[in-house]
Amino acid sequence: MSESTYLQLRSLITAGGELQLSLRETKIPEPGADEVLIRVLASPINPSDLALLLGPADLSTARAGGTAESPTFTAKVPANLMKGIAARIDQSMIVGNEGAGVVVKAGADAQSLLGKTVAVLGGGMYAQYRVAKAAACLALPAGTTAAEGASCFINPLTALGMVETMRRENHTALVHTAAASNLGQMLNKICQKDGIPLVNIVRNAEQADTLRKLGARYVCNSTSANFMDELTDAIAATGATLAFDAVGGGKLANQILICMEAAINRKSTTYNRYGSPVHKQVYCYGVLDTRPIEIDRTNVGMAWGVGGWLLTWFLEKIGPQATQKLRERIAAELKTTFSSHYTAELSLAEALRPDVINAYNRRATGEKYLINPNKGLQ
Amino acid sequence: MSESTYLQLRSLITAGGELQLSLRETKIPEPGADEVLIRVLASPINPSDLALLLGPADLSTARAGGTAESPTFTAKVPANLMKGIAARIDQSMIVGNEGAGVVVKAGADAQSLLGKTVAVLGGGMYAQYRVAKAAACLALPAGTTAAEGASCFINPLTALGMVETMRRENHTALVHTAAASNLGQMLNKICQKDGIPLVNIVRNAEQADTLRKLGARYVCNSTSANFMDELTDAIAATGATLAFDAVGGGKLANQILICMEAAINRKSTTYNRYGSPVHKQVYCYGVLDTRPIEIDRTNVGMAWGVGGWLLTWFLEKIGPQATQKLRERIAAELKTTFSSHYTAELSLAEALRPDVINAYNRRATGEKYLINPNKGLQ
Repeated sequence: MSESTYLQLRSLITAGGELQLSLRETKIPEPGADEVLIRVLASPINPSDLALLLGPADLSTARAGGTAESPTFTAKVPANLMKGIAARIDQSMIVGNEGAGVVVKAGADAQSLLGKTVAVLGGGMYAQYRVAKAAACLALPAGTTAAEGASCFINPLTALGMVETMRRENHTALVHTAAASNLGQMLNKICQKDGIPLVNIVRNAEQADTLRKLGARYVCNSTSANFMDELTDAIAATGATLAFDAVGGGKLANQILICMEAAINRKSTTYNRYGSPVHKQVYCYGVLDTRPIEIDRTNVGMAWGVGGWLLTWFLEKIGPQATQKLRERIAAELKTTFSSHYTAELSLAEALRPDVINAYNRRATGEKYLINPNKGLQ
Repeated sequence: MSESTYLQLRSLITAGGELQLSLRETKIPEPGADEVLIRVLASPINPSDLALLLGPADLSTARAGGTAESPTFTAKVPANLMKGIAARIDQSMIVGNEGAGVVVKAGADAQSLLGKTVAVLGGGMYAQYRVAKAAACLALPAGTTAAEGASCFINPLTALGMVETMRRENHTALVHTAAASNLGQMLNKICQKDGIPLVNIVRNAEQADTLRKLGARYVCNSTSANFMDELTDAIAATGATLAFDAVGGGKLANQILICMEAAINRKSTTYNRYGSPVHKQVYCYGVLDTRPIEIDRTNVGMAWGVGGWLLTWFLEKIGPQATQKLRERIAAELKTTFSSHYTAELSLAEALRPDVINAYNRRATGEKYLINPNKGLQ
């Protein structure tokens, strides 16, 4: 690799149904007048990155290839899942939604950022270098490392987006599933700070403990024999009529709607054959469970909705000014409310190893991996 | 029965799990100054009436009882379905959401309605007489019979409510299921008149013929081997991103979302891993299929929603002025766009016979029954 080139992770799915990951050597670009060149030092592997990186590939067919310096990874994509990714077939995709690094070159109008550690949201961060518009950079407060700032957009904005959605759609409390996740812990910190009642749904006692230690008041374990009663009690106590669901498969969304309806009807004195008129909403923002979502309406009534929720589209909807307010809050609370912890720091080459991919693709609760594209290459 | 009393159909579900239908003899009330007394001559059996009339009773356990003059009907309600109707247990309910009849008495401030044929929405129409506020009465145009005006609220307002929802939520075309129904035929007439592209989903070739004879342009048969392709073609041709679904169980809502997404992506040139950003919505307003709704998100993307839709709450949301506009249109087009046809006219006693209940509860497409509470009792 010459001094004027850098490595960039690429994900390609061929028309023949093969996922190919590789490191492409690319010429280091010159930043324009309003741009900066960032040496990327930290970029997290979020679930949204995994979806682009690995697509619907069957990892049991994985093979490592290439050389130590230029490793590759391949796996088969099942034929029935190709239709859902038709638009990316035979297109080499850059990966890595967010990250942070040091500005090593700056255009004439962006000199103030030179030498600063900045965070960027926008794709292609699994690369040693990335050019970005100066306006898109969030200069991190002095004393903040790239690793500390690497995850300052997606999880923090998602958690704040949930709270903002709650306010804009006239709800006053929240239910959250997979609540012990990095994101879930962040949401607990926000809700405690803002005085918003939050019902946390987890899958085991350890996760419940984790959240209780963080001060969570309402924690329901979905594997408890009394889960439905416990969830109804928590929803009745908080008045939650909005849920954000990371799972989105099977019966969980339905269970939440049933418990919301039961909680509302505890206060009702008259029969309404269509159920309570209070709107109950579940937004599925994740796909931890890829099975179909099942909605049995028997005990739900007619005032319900289930749908997808995506951060990018939400931010477009609220517009740049409202988004900027959220970003400012994140910068101000980066080491407290919005801090992230990582399981391991990977080089680009390590990120292509089948055993490592299996580890970070497991998406275990509380585990989160960081790529440092310059690790081992400095 | 004395001259000062009348019969009123009652539906009761006991705490012991028994549905009891009966005809209760009640004193004819005096209308107040702003009220009228209507001799009810026609009231349709809508799906919403059936839900209240029969509840979740198991009709295979039905028994007829009482006398010819005062018949009764009983059936068991399965224990696991009692929770969903907790609020109506041991309460004797009046039934019949809408209907029409002749004003036989009027309060001091309502004399202008005396002798007129009027239609009313508001419950308790399965009765020989009903008192109503004069303001709630829609005086039918001269030459209109009670039978012609009996269904002038629920189906017409529902069909218009769908179109109004489409406009308010920024869609430009519609998909409708169970489209050969009385309501579906009405929706076709409205959409043809208003120039709104409408995709009709039916379950057999006869229903498709019925709609094509009415001038429907897009008709898809869900039992066709090429249903998904045909539906995608129709959605692509119309640009429909909103569906109203009377079925609401199984995979139909999911199929509609998948075809909407495929139709949108036909025009797309770039890959978006979250699918198209165009919001795709299915409102389930009926329960023809009581199985759970299944949403497999594989080929749907993230911009989707499924939810309940209820006429009453929709009208509350748009407010009285907008509702009045819809009512005025209905009155003006009662014999054309909003005409209804009935399979049979039943007396109150006939409506309690097990064989008759089985017939009208079958909810066969295009079949609709009318109760004339004064039939055989005049």
